[in-house]
Amino acid sequence: VGAPIFPKDRIFDSTPTGVVMGLAWTSLGGVSLFIETVAVAPSEKAALRCTGQMGDVMKESTEIAFSFARRWLHEHEPTNDFFDKNQIHMHIPEGATPKDGPSAGITMTTTLLSLAMGKPVRQKLAMTGEMSLTGSVLPVGGIKEKVLASQRAGVDTVILPVDNKRDWEELDDKTRELTRVHFASTYRDVFDIAFSEDKVVSAARKA
Amino acid sequence: VGAPIFPKDRIFDSTPTGVVMGLAWTSLGGVSLFIETVAVAPSEKAALRCTGQMGDVMKESTEIAFSFARRWLHEHEPTNDFFDKNQIHMHIPEGATPKDGPSAGITMTTTLLSLAMGKPVRQKLAMTGEMSLTGSVLPVGGIKEKVLASQRAGVDTVILPVDNKRDWEELDDKTRELTRVHFASTYRDVFDIAFSEDKVVSAARKA
Amino acid sequence: VGAPIFPKDRIFDSTPTGVVMGLAWTSLGGVSLFIETVAVAPSEKAALRCTGQMGDVMKESTEIAFSFARRWLHEHEPTNDFFDKNQIHMHIPEGATPKDGPSAGITMTTTLLSLAMGKPVRQKLAMTGEMSLTGSVLPVGGIKEKVLASQRAGVDTVILPVDNKRDWEELDDKTRELTRVHFASTYRDVFDIAFSEDKVVSAARKA
Repeated sequence: VGAPIFPKDRIFDSTPTGVVMGLAWTSLGGVSLFIETVAVAPSEKAALRCTGQMGDVMKESTEIAFSFARRWLHEHEPTNDFFDKNQIHMHIPEGATPKDGPSAGITMTTTLLSLAMGKPVRQKLAMTGEMSLTGSVLPVGGIKEKVLASQRAGVDTVILPVDNKRDWEELDDKTRELTRVHFASTYRDVFDIAFSEDKVVSAARKA
Repeated sequence: VGAPIFPKDRIFDSTPTGVVMGLAWTSLGGVSLFIETVAVAPSEKAALRCTGQMGDVMKESTEIAFSFARRWLHEHEPTNDFFDKNQIHMHIPEGATPKDGPSAGITMTTTLLSLAMGKPVRQKLAMTGEMSLTGSVLPVGGIKEKVLASQRAGVDTVILPVDNKRDWEELDDKTRELTRVHFASTYRDVFDIAFSEDKVVSAARKA
Repeated sequence: VGAPIFPKDRIFDSTPTGVVMGLAWTSLGGVSLFIETVAVAPSEKAALRCTGQMGDVMKESTEIAFSFARRWLHEHEPTNDFFDKNQIHMHIPEGATPKDGPSAGITMTTTLLSLAMGKPVRQKLAMTGEMSLTGSVLPVGGIKEKVLASQRAGVDTVILPVDNKRDWEELDDKTRELTRVHFASTYRDVFDIAFSEDKVVSAARKA
């Protein structure tokens, strides 16, 4: 009932609260995809439900992201009890495309914090990176394909793991000129870029 | 016990509250099918049960539809606590035919809202489209076969994803003359057509 | 455990409350079988347990039947809280014979209502038909074999889906003379025949 469709690169013109663009790497090349996180209803305890044909590794990434985001929020906004009071649902379209791997870690965490804080991330931003439970950002594959996919999607800023710096430096000059890159070694770096004012981002430009 | 039967195209003369016609695409061509949603009994918390030999992707579609419908209702009819007070059951006949894929997303969401608001959708309407968790309507396959199936079922109006516009335009003139089409980019568009007065729908005619 | 036994055609001389004869279609021909539903114990919430080596489609049929029967009872006997106060068990003998398919839908629903209302169905009655969640009766296979099986079991009245009318009409005159047939398009039709006085049934005779 309905054939799988090759994912299109943009489904949002501007990303709302709780939605962050990630970058994936498939046998057909890189693709951008939005991770969507919403509060479904009030709840008496923290609860996260996930859809989008996620494989086992990716499901664990959602758990890591949820644990990390709850701790982060507790530390940085101690009076914010959003995660304890809401049933949360995270989805990655297209619904029929199986997805797996840990590289959406920082993106998932960011959707959760965006939702809980009620702040959208800066526009035209995409990110990729595995995250450890204590917030280390670990390198991932497919950097070239992912950067190209982000450019097709109209993105001008990407966040990459610091240990992927060499992959970035191997890209040709033309590609690197089209994208502002930030390297993250911990989630703190990701957070500062994602939720910063544009002014700060510009100052931090590296390439 | 009982051989599978080729689905017939109509089982309702007029669709009641909670029932909306979807369109599916099989190896044998397109078929129309009714998605039925009912409130079984009062419940102390939100609960959705599904039957109809749904595959994994389609089951996730029901969860996305339920999350979205609950949020939509909360936003648009804040005093309507229907979803928090009822045990809901969604079924897609024929019960013996395995079904899968994400393209029933907008139809499922519409059955839930129809039920919760106590309003049937406009008659002779069918729809197809994947839905993301935040309400983007994503393209699906089999447009030609689905439109033909809707015509066999006596439907005069269909809702298609905006990114399937090209598929519609490739249909021959005869086919397009028989059906009024509406293209949806977000669920807002679907809602406005499904629950509009006929007058408004006519004014919005496109082909 | 235990070899499959060829189903015998009658295990009840007269059907008690909660028991209704269904008709199945196997590679060996048609068979009649009794669906049995009993209240096991008081319960604080609605609960249905099923046995009889039912396959996935048939299990879903029990859920559809239960949802439908609860809604029907709520609408037609609003003070009858039988389903909310009892743990219910539905079984289809022979226990070792695997069974599947949706065609027992109307029979299952009728056993549940018979039990809840405390009324047996009329005697010498059998029925077959898939049921949708909102009560449409959908066509099934094996009409000829099922009618012959009902006659072997001493049945004089059968309820068939209206969309199987052509199958009935293709039977030879001799077969049709032996059985009074009623065609159902919604569960309302099934209910009226199953729980009617004989007088009414005779008047409604069609063939």
